This record gives sequence, C-alpha cells and structure tokens, in this order.
Amino acid sequence: MRLEHPHLTERFGAVRIHELQRVVELDSGGSAEDHPTGHGHASQVVPAAALRAIERELVIVIPCMNETRRVIEGVLSGIPHDCLIVLVSNSARAPVDRYEIEAQTLADYCRVAERPALAVHQRDAGLAAALKVAGAAELIDEEGLVRAGKGEGMLVGMALATLTRRRYVGYVDADNYVPGAVNEYCKAFAAGLHLAESPYAMVRISWHSKPKLQEGRLFFSRRGRASQVTNHFLNQLIAEYSSFGTDVIATGNAGEHALTLDLGLRMRMAGGFAVEPYQYVDLFEQFGGVLDSFHPEVMASSVEVRQIETRNPHFHDNKGEGHVKDMRLQALNVLYHSAVCLPPVRDAIREFLTAQGALAPEAEPPRERVYPPVGALALDRMLDVLTSEARTFRQIERCLPEGLRTDPPIQRTVA
Amino acid sequence: MRLEHPHLTERFGAVRIHELQRVVELDSGGSAEDHPTGHGHASQVVPAAALRAIERELVIVIPCMNETRRVIEGVLSGIPHDCLIVLVSNSARAPVDRYEIEAQTLADYCRVAERPALAVHQRDAGLAAALKVAGAAELIDEEGLVRAGKGEGMLVGMALATLTRRRYVGYVDADNYVPGAVNEYCKAFAAGLHLAESPYAMVRISWHSKPKLQEGRLFFSRRGRASQVTNHFLNQLIAEYSSFGTDVIATGNAGEHALTLDLGLRMRMAGGFAVEPYQYVDLFEQFGGVLDSFHPEVMASSVEVRQIETRNPHFHDNKGEGHVKDMRLQALNVLYHSAVCLPPVRDAIREFLTAQGALAPEAEPPRERVYPPVGALALDRMLDVLTSEARTFRQIERCLPEGLRTDPPIQRTVA
Repeated sequence: MRLEHPHLTERFGAVRIHELQRVVELDSGGSAEDHPTGHGHASQVVPAAALRAIERELVIVIPCMNETRRVIEGVLSGIPHDCLIVLVSNSARAPVDRYEIEAQTLADYCRVAERPALAVHQRDAGLAAALKVAGAAELIDEEGLVRAGKGEGMLVGMALATLTRRRYVGYVDADNYVPGAVNEYCKAFAAGLHLAESPYAMVRISWHSKPKLQEGRLFFSRRGRASQVTNHFLNQLIAEYSSFGTDVIATGNAGEHALTLDLGLRMRMAGGFAVEPYQYVDLFEQFGGVLDSFHPEVMASSVEVRQIETRNPHFHDNKGEGHVKDMRLQALNVLYHSAVCLPPVRDAIREFLTAQGALAPEAEPPRERVYPPVGALALDRMLDVLTSEARTFRQIERCLPEGLRTDPPIQRTVA
Repeated sequence: MRLEHPHLTERFGAVRIHELQRVVELDSGGSAEDHPTGHGHASQVVPAAALRAIERELVIVIPCMNETRRVIEGVLSGIPHDCLIVLVSNSARAPVDRYEIEAQTLADYCRVAERPALAVHQRDAGLAAALKVAGAAELIDEEGLVRAGKGEGMLVGMALATLTRRRYVGYVDADNYVPGAVNEYCKAFAAGLHLAESPYAMVRISWHSKPKLQEGRLFFSRRGRASQVTNHFLNQLIAEYSSFGTDVIATGNAGEHALTLDLGLRMRMAGGFAVEPYQYVDLFEQFGGVLDSFHPEVMASSVEVRQIETRNPHFHDNKGEGHVKDMRLQALNVLYHSAVCLPPVRDAIREFLTAQGALAPEAEPPRERVYPPVGALALDRMLDVLTSEARTFRQIERCLPEGLRTDPPIQRTVA
C-alpha cells in the first residue's frame, strides 16, 4: 500500500495526531529492491511483507446487527486471510434466530477459506456472567445481560481479541456492500500500525466518499453528517488549548479503526455510539497532560493517532436520520462532560444542541456510560465462564486440507 | 487470492471453457508454509508471489470515454503497482479538451505513485497514420482517423501492450466507482493466468452484482441485461454442437478480461461493442475444430478460458437503455454471421431480434467489422510513425525518488 506523507502533526500533550493521509495505491507492488528507501519523495510505501507481519497479529472485530447473509459474506471475503475474525452480534434471535444464520455463514465461510474465527452474541446470558466475574458489572443491564450498545459490543470484541494473544485489534462495520473497501480498511490498519513509531498507536479511517441517492442519481458526498459535527467540536477543543485553529481531526466518528492492544487495554470505552468519539476524549483525558496520567510509560513514549483516507467509497445501507442524530448527540455528550472540555467548547455544544432542538434551554446534555479499561478485567476468569456458560460462543478452528485441525483461536491459559 | 475450484469444463474443439469460479478471499494471505499444496479441498489458493510474477508481465489497458477526473483517479489507484497502465482515450477534445485532463491526471498520478504509463487518443491523426503504415488500413474511417468504437480502442491498446514486450494484456473499463473492484479484477486476471496450463489463455470476469436504483432503494442485480442475451445464444451454439444443453458461458460481454499475448496476437478483433462477445466466436472459428485452423501449435496445446466471479459489486454510471441495446445487437450480429453458427441458432437470433423490434421480418442482421490479428501488423513501423507523428502519444517514465529516470515503457527496437 502506498500512502501520501502526512504533512502536519498536532499535539495534545503526549497525543500526536497526524493529519489525514490519503491512499495512493491499494497495492504498491514490488519487492524491497523496487522500494529501497521504503518511501519516495511524494509518498510512503508499506511493502506487502510489512502488511502481512501486522495482519498476522491483527484481530478484526465485526460488530453486527441484523445484516443479511450476503452482506456479511462479502465483508468476510474482504478481510485478509491472516487476520483473525471475531463476530460480535447483537442481531434479533426471534422470530428467526438471525445469530444462528450469521454464525452458520461464518462457519461455512471459514471452512472454504480454511481460516479460524470467533463468534458470540452480545445478549448471551453466559457472556454477561463471564463479564461480571471478570469485574465488568457496569456492562450489565437490568435484564442481567450485556447492554445492547455498539460500544459494549466493541468492548466484548476487545476482550476476546486480547484472549487470542494477538497484538492489534481493528473494527470493521458489518453493513458494507463493498468487499474491496473492507480489504482496503484492513490494509490501511496494517499500514498505519506498521508506520507508527510508538507502541501506543491508533489508526482511524476516513472513507473517500459516501454515495447517496439524490433525486434519482448518485452523489458522492465527502463527509458524513455526524462526523462533520463531531470533528468540528473536537477540533475546537484542541484549538482552545493551542490558541491555533485546526482541522486536524477528520475521524471523530470513525467506525473503522484499529489500535495496538498496548494502547487499547489502557483506554476506557464509552457505550453506544459514543464509543468512537470518546476514544479521542479519553486520549486527551488520560494522556493530554491536562489531568494526571496513570500511565507514565505511555506519557514517556507518546500516543500516535494516524488518520487514513481510503480510495474506496463507503457504500452501505442508509440507516436513516434518527441513527445519524443519535450518533451526533452521543458524541457531543461525552465531549461536553469530559474533564478536559473547556467552557467555550461546552457553551458552543449547548448552543448547538439547543438550536437543533435536541436540548431544552439551560438543560445539561445527558451523560453517556463510560467503562473501565479492558486491561483492568480478569480475562482468565472471563474465559472460564465464557467457555462453560456462553451457549452462543463459537471457536471456529482452522480446518486444514488433510482434515487436520489446528488449535482454537483462544487457548486456555497455562497456569 | 483464493478461488473456488471450477467443477466443470466444456470443450469446443481445442477451446476449453471452465465454469465460473468464485473468489473466496480477496487476499489469501500467508506464506508457502501456510499453503503447502497451493490448494485445499474446497478452494484454490494463488499466493501473492505468484500474482506478483504475472502482474510484472501484465499491461492493463483502460479504454476511456469522457469519464471524470475523480473516477479515473480511483480506477488508477486500484491497478496493482507492477502492472503497466495504458490509457486509450476516445474522449471529447472540444470545447474542453478532456483528453488533456485525462493525460494530466494520469501523469500526476504516476508521479506520486512512481510508476510508468502510456496514453494515446484514439482519434489522433498520427495514430491513424501509424496503424496504416503497420497494415491496419481497415481501422481507418472516412475522416482518416481510427474508428471511434470500443473494439478499435482495445485493438490499439493491444498493439501498445505488445510493443512494451510484456506477456499479458488485460482490459478494465474506466467507468468504475470502486477502486477495490478494479483491484480485484486485476488480481483475478493474475490468478487466472497463473492457473492456466496453456500459453493460450484468457480470463473473463463476471461481476458479483450490479447495484441499481429501483424505486428509491438499491437492488443488487445478478446479471446484466446485455450479458443475459449474449450468454444465452453463445451457450445455445455450444449446445447445438454437443447435443447437451449448457450454461457454461457467463461472460459473453465481459468488459473486464485479460489474455496472454501469445493468444491475443492470433485473435481477430471485432469493432465497437461486438469486441467482447466476438472473442468467443473467434475462438470457436479459429480453434473450434469446425473450420481449418491456421495455428496448429494452438490446436496442439488447447486454448483455456477461465471465468471468475468477483466479490465486489460492479458499481458504475448507468449509460442508459440505448447503450445496452447496442451491446446486445452487436453481440448477436457477430454470432449470426459467424461461419460456425448453426441454422437453429441463426433462426433463434433472427426471431429474437424481430420480436424485439430490432430487425424487420425476413431481414438479415447487419455485419460488424472484424479486423485481422494484431500479430499480423508491422508493429515496429507503427512505433516509428507513432513516435514521430502522434501528438497525443505519451510515454510516462517512472520517476524515481532520487530524480533518476528509468527507461520509457516502450523502447525502440534494436535492429
């Protein structure tokens, strides 16, 4: 993969945010001989072997809710073979058990593709029990199950990723009609993680465009409706600290992102749709130098955020206006309530929400749920209960041509 | 890349047509160690190194007509770095010179991506002069320029590909909104050419689906309107010879296809939109065993046609009903007039065209133009005139980081 150089980097304490860099070539080809320096004057090449080395350590979590079998199969076909697939589903289980269809699709696919995978349903009582034992009681709702939000599903995905002992986790939304775009996201994750100089690194994707139906024809819109607002206020926050206006953040709502587990295990995650924007907020809180950090090793090394603009359009089902509004509100709620948020940003958020009719005058935006880091959980205890009680938990082993089997993706910890 | 095994192969004399095989994984990852046999029980793996070896010998011709800069740039970004790009444009040159925009886009892209390319305008008087000198006077119209059809542009592309001394040529349409799909086409070309056992091989793409606007929502249609008809009659022809009905041909109108130049240089090409379906007809005529073949070496070795179904949807501009009708008619015209076409197929074609209102009762379908093989042209003489007279002909050299330049894609023949 060939990328443009990022020309500008903003800092927020120990957090280094690189300006958006575009993908130049999906496949930069060639051998080391062709790219002796690894980068030319105008662009940066990540050779296939370097991508492969990251992919071997990369878990791709697919949060999934009621997607059709065909769409899921397409997404799976786009994930590079060496990445480990983890499906975390929150799909309906009645009248038709859609999770069963998904798990079957995954198992069928993995058999043909000779690769392993993991799957679990977010509302499995056994999963809730496992998380409770691990020390994540906050995730559990009144029904005794893991809360139904996207952030909660992603947290489950990160816990499973950690149990596989791989080093990186990436997230890819299941509602994507273009397998080639999914492939590009994963390659961009690998490229960004390879280029990162810090062990505490994150890669966030900004898609090239989003095709929309508009008066019977296609229009390729450049920015999402939720992202525009989220990015605006995150950039305002940085600008209030630095006294210089900035547009550096282009990926406030990036559903597609990847990070080192060294970083991920230290991050707090928000519930629902606040999860992605809260990642920036949490980095600012924990490593921004405004508040005390619990992680001097991270402060000493810096956190690197890379933003990559893909070539493929993001072509997915339109989830409607309500979905966009939810995303926007939850993003602003977490920023508003952050201890690093400055009064001018707070005022601007309240003004915006009031003007939108989303908030009564003088009212406070609601708080979103924020969970402790996955690194604080007792994951070995979680695994015990998961294995014994979670009925929807599937370890799909890689099935070799000769009928030989390899080890399951998660192996029991040897004491 | 991982593909399903093709289960069935039809023969038409020396022509072996493999049933459609689906792409399982865009990136099958791993090292040789992971794929000791190269294929599993359920699928066939073509390792990245094998793809690369083909790509280094593969020229990708992009026939282009009035596409926007953004769309072209996306297509370019999807073509693997090691493939050589050849742009053959038939775009308008007034009031705005769109070819200049395209050539500039290509040059800018190649500078950033550090790769070479070739470009020419189909209606360049110097190109016409070059082809005339080479012995292809049939290509020239009343205005003294190369005819404006798609097939004619593709023929020019093959001549240029041959001059680069690479071994394979592939075609990718310029009107594609999904760079990842373009990438998959090229990978599928490479996979198919790698798997082919004969030096006379062709790979034809069938896209997974084609998204269409239908009553305000998207519908993923499986088969194109032109392809359905073309495939039907091509299959009927095979069935008439074998006495067994068949659906083997799924790629009658495949705009995306690649072939070895060993085969390509021996094939006659049709003009306009007849070009792709005529490839099957020409193979049947020359190597089908019904008529005498001028190429005993091919007859001894067989011709291999692989058909690959991609994962990505084919997402392009809707060229309208007229375009589809043109494609359909021209396909049937060449089949109708072929010396291998049997009376029942001829009757069925005439009946179909009459029912469609495309042909008067008892009338004969018109003939399409068919040109002699590129291998019969004096290409060294073509190159001389092209270099000296074709003003739109561009050789873009690969620009190396240190400012060093490599040789141009086409080097002058040493006597």
